[in-house]
Amino acid sequence: MELVTKKRLHLFTGRANEPLAAEIAAEMGVELGEANLVDFANGEIKCQFRDSLRGGDVFMIQSHASFEGRSVNDSIMEQLIMIDAARRASAKRITAVIPFYGYARQDRKAAGREPITAKLLAQLFKGAGAERIVSIDLHSGQIQGFFDGPVDHLTAMPVLIKHLKGIIPSDSVVVSPDSGRVKVAERYAKHLDADVASIYKKRSRNIVNEVEALGIMGDVDGKTCVIVDDMIDTAGTLCSAAEILTVNGASDVMAATTHGVFSGPAIDRMKNSTMSKVIVTNTVPIPSEKQFDKLEILSVAPVFGDALDAVFADSSVSEIFDGENQS
Amino acid sequence: MELVTKKRLHLFTGRANEPLAAEIAAEMGVELGEANLVDFANGEIKCQFRDSLRGGDVFMIQSHASFEGRSVNDSIMEQLIMIDAARRASAKRITAVIPFYGYARQDRKAAGREPITAKLLAQLFKGAGAERIVSIDLHSGQIQGFFDGPVDHLTAMPVLIKHLKGIIPSDSVVVSPDSGRVKVAERYAKHLDADVASIYKKRSRNIVNEVEALGIMGDVDGKTCVIVDDMIDTAGTLCSAAEILTVNGASDVMAATTHGVFSGPAIDRMKNSTMSKVIVTNTVPIPSEKQFDKLEILSVAPVFGDALDAVFADSSVSEIFDGENQS
Amino acid sequence: MELVTKKRLHLFTGRANEPLAAEIAAEMGVELGEANLVDFANGEIKCQFRDSLRGGDVFMIQSHASFEGRSVNDSIMEQLIMIDAARRASAKRITAVIPFYGYARQDRKAAGREPITAKLLAQLFKGAGAERIVSIDLHSGQIQGFFDGPVDHLTAMPVLIKHLKGIIPSDSVVVSPDSGRVKVAERYAKHLDADVASIYKKRSRNIVNEVEALGIMGDVDGKTCVIVDDMIDTAGTLCSAAEILTVNGASDVMAATTHGVFSGPAIDRMKNSTMSKVIVTNTVPIPSEKQFDKLEILSVAPVFGDALDAVFADSSVSEIFDGENQS
Amino acid sequence: MELVTKKRLHLFTGRANEPLAAEIAAEMGVELGEANLVDFANGEIKCQFRDSLRGGDVFMIQSHASFEGRSVNDSIMEQLIMIDAARRASAKRITAVIPFYGYARQDRKAAGREPITAKLLAQLFKGAGAERIVSIDLHSGQIQGFFDGPVDHLTAMPVLIKHLKGIIPSDSVVVSPDSGRVKVAERYAKHLDADVASIYKKRSRNIVNEVEALGIMGDVDGKTCVIVDDMIDTAGTLCSAAEILTVNGASDVMAATTHGVFSGPAIDRMKNSTMSKVIVTNTVPIPSEKQFDKLEILSVAPVFGDALDAVFADSSVSEIFDGENQS
Amino acid sequence: MELVTKKRLHLFTGRANEPLAAEIAAEMGVELGEANLVDFANGEIKCQFRDSLRGGDVFMIQSHASFEGRSVNDSIMEQLIMIDAARRASAKRITAVIPFYGYARQDRKAAGREPITAKLLAQLFKGAGAERIVSIDLHSGQIQGFFDGPVDHLTAMPVLIKHLKGIIPSDSVVVSPDSGRVKVAERYAKHLDADVASIYKKRSRNIVNEVEALGIMGDVDGKTCVIVDDMIDTAGTLCSAAEILTVNGASDVMAATTHGVFSGPAIDRMKNSTMSKVIVTNTVPIPSEKQFDKLEILSVAPVFGDALDAVFADSSVSEIFDGENQS
Amino acid sequence: MELVTKKRLHLFTGRANEPLAAEIAAEMGVELGEANLVDFANGEIKCQFRDSLRGGDVFMIQSHASFEGRSVNDSIMEQLIMIDAARRASAKRITAVIPFYGYARQDRKAAGREPITAKLLAQLFKGAGAERIVSIDLHSGQIQGFFDGPVDHLTAMPVLIKHLKGIIPSDSVVVSPDSGRVKVAERYAKHLDADVASIYKKRSRNIVNEVEALGIMGDVDGKTCVIVDDMIDTAGTLCSAAEILTVNGASDVMAATTHGVFSGPAIDRMKNSTMSKVIVTNTVPIPSEKQFDKLEILSVAPVFGDALDAVFADSSVSEIFDGENQS
Repeated sequence: MELVTKKRLHLFTGRANEPLAAEIAAEMGVELGEANLVDFANGEIKCQFRDSLRGGDVFMIQSHASFEGRSVNDSIMEQLIMIDAARRASAKRITAVIPFYGYARQDRKAAGREPITAKLLAQLFKGAGAERIVSIDLHSGQIQGFFDGPVDHLTAMPVLIKHLKGIIPSDSVVVSPDSGRVKVAERYAKHLDADVASIYKKRSRNIVNEVEALGIMGDVDGKTCVIVDDMIDTAGTLCSAAEILTVNGASDVMAATTHGVFSGPAIDRMKNSTMSKVIVTNTVPIPSEKQFDKLEILSVAPVFGDALDAVFADSSVSEIFDGENQS
Repeated sequence: MELVTKKRLHLFTGRANEPLAAEIAAEMGVELGEANLVDFANGEIKCQFRDSLRGGDVFMIQSHASFEGRSVNDSIMEQLIMIDAARRASAKRITAVIPFYGYARQDRKAAGREPITAKLLAQLFKGAGAERIVSIDLHSGQIQGFFDGPVDHLTAMPVLIKHLKGIIPSDSVVVSPDSGRVKVAERYAKHLDADVASIYKKRSRNIVNEVEALGIMGDVDGKTCVIVDDMIDTAGTLCSAAEILTVNGASDVMAATTHGVFSGPAIDRMKNSTMSKVIVTNTVPIPSEKQFDKLEILSVAPVFGDALDAVFADSSVSEIFDGENQS
Repeated sequence: MELVTKKRLHLFTGRANEPLAAEIAAEMGVELGEANLVDFANGEIKCQFRDSLRGGDVFMIQSHASFEGRSVNDSIMEQLIMIDAARRASAKRITAVIPFYGYARQDRKAAGREPITAKLLAQLFKGAGAERIVSIDLHSGQIQGFFDGPVDHLTAMPVLIKHLKGIIPSDSVVVSPDSGRVKVAERYAKHLDADVASIYKKRSRNIVNEVEALGIMGDVDGKTCVIVDDMIDTAGTLCSAAEILTVNGASDVMAATTHGVFSGPAIDRMKNSTMSKVIVTNTVPIPSEKQFDKLEILSVAPVFGDALDAVFADSSVSEIFDGENQS
Repeated sequence: MELVTKKRLHLFTGRANEPLAAEIAAEMGVELGEANLVDFANGEIKCQFRDSLRGGDVFMIQSHASFEGRSVNDSIMEQLIMIDAARRASAKRITAVIPFYGYARQDRKAAGREPITAKLLAQLFKGAGAERIVSIDLHSGQIQGFFDGPVDHLTAMPVLIKHLKGIIPSDSVVVSPDSGRVKVAERYAKHLDADVASIYKKRSRNIVNEVEALGIMGDVDGKTCVIVDDMIDTAGTLCSAAEILTVNGASDVMAATTHGVFSGPAIDRMKNSTMSKVIVTNTVPIPSEKQFDKLEILSVAPVFGDALDAVFADSSVSEIFDGENQS
Repeated sequence: MELVTKKRLHLFTGRANEPLAAEIAAEMGVELGEANLVDFANGEIKCQFRDSLRGGDVFMIQSHASFEGRSVNDSIMEQLIMIDAARRASAKRITAVIPFYGYARQDRKAAGREPITAKLLAQLFKGAGAERIVSIDLHSGQIQGFFDGPVDHLTAMPVLIKHLKGIIPSDSVVVSPDSGRVKVAERYAKHLDADVASIYKKRSRNIVNEVEALGIMGDVDGKTCVIVDDMIDTAGTLCSAAEILTVNGASDVMAATTHGVFSGPAIDRMKNSTMSKVIVTNTVPIPSEKQFDKLEILSVAPVFGDALDAVFADSSVSEIFDGENQS
Repeated sequence: MELVTKKRLHLFTGRANEPLAAEIAAEMGVELGEANLVDFANGEIKCQFRDSLRGGDVFMIQSHASFEGRSVNDSIMEQLIMIDAARRASAKRITAVIPFYGYARQDRKAAGREPITAKLLAQLFKGAGAERIVSIDLHSGQIQGFFDGPVDHLTAMPVLIKHLKGIIPSDSVVVSPDSGRVKVAERYAKHLDADVASIYKKRSRNIVNEVEALGIMGDVDGKTCVIVDDMIDTAGTLCSAAEILTVNGASDVMAATTHGVFSGPAIDRMKNSTMSKVIVTNTVPIPSEKQFDKLEILSVAPVFGDALDAVFADSSVSEIFDGENQS
């Protein structure tokens, strides 16, 4: 008995960022499958797929974000459980699609006896049965090496740059908010034909107290400054950077970043900051109560749609980004 | 260079059930180590051990329970992260001590395309670096087979039986709340020198609607009935069983169970039930607002203390329970 | 160079249950491949496939049963060896088809220092190269979780129920032979529109010797009783149950079970029992010398044929059973 | 809490060669532990250790031989089950001691689509939990490389040579029974200060039928010939070799070999052969009904006793054999 | 979304034997892909594939040979790095094609505390992501068992035999250069309808010094002798064998071997030997400065071309060799 | 039989940096074991340990550096082979001590279809049997996460800082040679109570050709500048940085770095640079012909000696560095 082998795409989403998943499905012209995710009274999660996944090429979308009273850990476990169910349902290949990868900042030990949780996550996903990860703008490129399988690394840079080109003047400056991310600023600057600057910690020698003042490398006086970073969490570093840029004569300050995590005091800080605009994407869901006037949210759904199409059809993902998607 | 090999015990706890961990430490005459568990603004968890674990025999206690606004999944991830940190800190052996094992009821597929999350958990703990699991009164004995390493399975039965012996009359009946756990009731009955009965689903043939009535197997009229189970979650099954026992003439009804999960409507149901007493242990923390008059909480700390002493010293765990700790 | 990928089905059988394998092949309209299984003088087994398996989707059928002087362990090793040979012959996917899964009752530790052999088997099959297991009416549903890959769990219940419907009166009773399998009886009862009863161990308090008497839960007087279980091994429990049912007024007693292992005194016990009929399937081969008047053997070949067709063609297995094949 | 680490030796045996295990225990001055091995009616094997193995250094002795109606596969499975039980009972290290390693001749594919069962066995033992293998005179040295852990390879050569020195004249010849094992003969010859010869297949060109005649390389006329090999199975090759040596003028012919498997027609062939003596060791049990006048059985118990002592005490195994134990 | 699955062949080569790879590609009618292999100043190697490998069936050709100042270890690491890059580039299947497998002679421990490097290599290739190995005339057949996946074992014997048939007289003798490879000589002899002989170490008893003289088994006087072996490294054993054959009256001596490693003094030795011809294949590249008059180099490109075609198309490899490719 | 467990330290070195290993051994007061490393004629490496390693705690020192005509890949393979031999010789624990970790800069994909060779190496070492890695000043902290076991990360910073403190004036500037390593400069600056500056790529907008000019962030005029980095390979970046510092008025320029790889034109470039001093450590061996006047080589042997002592004795490694050894 001989048959031609076919492959069938199945797209599912956890509950952490359903609007993005719906947009991705629409981009791809497919329907999201039904995963029937339910919470038991004690908080345990269960899923049951309605349709047969047997032999299917399954993509499980989940942002590792908190949502509706559930935590980032709930999102992670939900995705792991969905993957386990798909594996036992005889899916042929399971891809974890992670628009926001949790614990990405814990990618190395900053001190002894710490975990490397970003690596732990990679192991958990492997253990649950994911053969491949698709993610976007990971905190560091090395995280790809944590996973013992292929990682398709996407970037929202083209989306952000296209938008920025329409709104910033020609002699703007791209600013790194701390000394560790100047290379990212350089990459943006190259595409925006802009200058680059960086905030850094100035040592204030002979000063009694230990507070470290911030300095600016590069010239920002009279310029529009775009602070770039991979994520905004509590917005502390970002808003301090904005303030110092303003103090040093920047004519306008805005931020452009992929992941708008917006935890704790972030919204208040940004509202009250010297920034005129904060541009993020929808990798993390931003509920309406967290939205504010200065905020612009761009969609990465086309980026994910193109990439998942390519992964399913075995065509090149690098080409989508002209090879600029690696860190 | 030659040295005599020594082993050093390290006892840590996650935040899900700190009182139990403190009691266990006190039983063992050791101090809990400092794990410095902190939540970041976006809900990510970090730990850093204060003291060197190098070469240590490390026990990580965590109940997979919700606590202070954090979910069962937070508890699981916290324990996995602690294990990862300990492994990277060169602990020699890491034992996951799990007074309440999450997702234990999802130990098989009840329908197609479901996960087997209890197995997934075992894989996650193995992947994170746990070499051994210590748990108590697992929902089914087969869960031991899910873990690719040794599992020390404890039981609270001796603690519960000793307590019951002091409060029930000599001709009591042990009752299984449904047809799936009669064997457990038999075991209790043997030690209490009691009779056994079971609630079961009566088919009501020729009846139009589908509601299934409950029946009782065994004689409960005029007897003190002790309903036994491994856990009380929403208490629905339990309270229905109690009611039918009362209706059928039971002179007194009480419940004895290891894990008091007490989710959703559990407290109200039990308060309003026909039960005179609900006896549980402290494997799951029960905050004061969930406590009520009928409730008695026994401690499993001595059970865990003896078992961890034995695991550390390589003496027999079975002997602690006269071999009755297996399912 | 680009080719359309094709898949080719290969069906092989070990020697433990060749008639069943031949029937399955006939159901599927394919031929069994030649495995050339030979015994060396010292009992070592060798196989060599005649045709190329390269890239094939290979199904290895073997019941873990004794046959012609060879033991259950010989059957297991034979299947492992066949899988190893197929893997080295570049089969693309290897499925272990196990109509009777050995050591299934050893699925948990009944006492300390025991093995969990059902889990060990799952590991051995994984280690040898099986990616998937197809089995039927496993002793417990948790065994699916022992295997780190997909398990297709079939059931003979529809076959047995269809047969029973033709031979039992409308007010029959389905009986569990001990307190651990009442849930199975309930499932049968639901499909047969029958009542349910159970044999259980009565404690005989104040009696000197330790012999435990059996009791019956539920009403069997004047009824046709069908005792159901997953397997009949020595038939001790079964025949005791039958006797007590008869003593308690059952008008007719019969047994329906998937696996007819029939070891040691089983045949004599069943012949001499009060049962009028013993219905089993052909998952375990029953040589003619073990057959007796009361015995009826139904075939599971159609069940396996449909399931293997579905596995090969990536269509749903659950649908074959309307989702009732999970435990 | 800190303790000095101790290690405790536990020695167990399967049922395939209990006399050898008892001798080894006596050599070591320890007692064999109780494994309580029982057969169920359907041939499934169960073990339960009487004493705690927690933290123990456990050695499981089993020859992969048939015994009392049980097959080589039963022996293998029995050892695997014992190892699984020991692992779950928290043994610290488990060593599979295999005086006769089954399927050793299937150490490579002699033709396409064959298994490499000797490798499969190594994987099964690893999967079950054995960390180390101790064996003796493996069919080929490469089998050590099949196991992903340390293998202690012993040899009975010193025992056999010491015995031969006492009974053969000074100008004897060591003979390889076929062209594949001349190197082994060379090693014996070196220690016996003897010459070497080999039987080989002579091509009989231009002869119609395909029967290949045997030839002798080396001079045996008037000499005492000692045929050496790793095992005697059906004794066909051996007895043909003996006959041709006698025909070619050998004054006396004997055989010296480690493993006396003695399958099928072996005993009759050897009895009726031209050999005056067959010397083997007790790695495979030889029941009294298989013993015959010409047979001498030497014990390898001292070899295993010394080796296991060294393994337990972390002293050198190579030194016991002056480094001659590798292939 | 459903697609027919296609597979695309990608053929790459490391730098150790580019001419052979080019020939193989020509045989298969495909082009070698661009791997862009570069050396960094400190000797680290990097590769980057020009074209997308996504979903591809990738074959990485590399002989483990030294080349242009780079060592055998450089060749091995280069192939491992290429495999890692292909895996991360989402190749579907990666096959390591190894015309000369390094460290094959270290396939067992010749003495204590030695590595089994041939097994280590198999593990390294597995770890890097190779699912399959294709090699030719491995030093021993057991090496296939070192790899935990399928190995396609090819042989150059048909190529060598076809060539020999044209140049040797009808009553030639095939000679094994030492006692360990007589079986290989027998196989050649069968196809050449020739006799077989072997060189062996004669014990020179009662002689003071330890030098062992060589003897010949079989009759070579007046015959054309073809010494066969798997490889020629330093040519010491080979040239000694040739000399002794000549001394014993051989009318002509030649060598036929698959792998011409030709290290150190090999070329000089062979030039100055009594051999009239040395026939090898191109599994190891032989630079022009190493070529000499007596040398004939046959190509194995057709053998690899046919085999890789079969592997890609899932047709039988054994058939190419009439089943004679196993050891 | 019961014994107190002892552990014995074994220290071995590959041939890439024997002087450093000898110094480490001297620091620890132990002798280096004999590994008997030999090269075969074709470049294959073999090792055989003289003494028994059974049960030993084995440390294998090897810098992944080229040495005496052998390449970085030879060094890596040599260490892997030593580890394999130790594992098979029953070492209890094997630690790969890697003063210079090869391929560390390939720790992420800089473009599509590249390998992550630093991760590959971690996998190879794990596969060979290393349970732990000890290394120093890894190119990025994330590399620790590539290894599935504990990594002890040391740092030469205290050694370099102590030396610098004695030779630089109080108002020096620590300079990062490119924008990616400013954080490292900050750490040095903190300990030296110095200011920080960085070289960066200035965009030269509106300029036709693509050459990017370098700029300096921070004030260096009239200052002593210490350029810090983890390694000097070809010294291109370093010498360009030095020149621009001099051009911008630095009064003195020197470099301080852990790994002096010194490939290709490095020596000439440094000799001819504006630097007055180049300070490195001996993690990579620097043969006398590569040494020059400005070069100062500090020893990391005390750092490794203390760390290995701590690893062997299970005392804290972090404490040796006051917790500053993590990246």
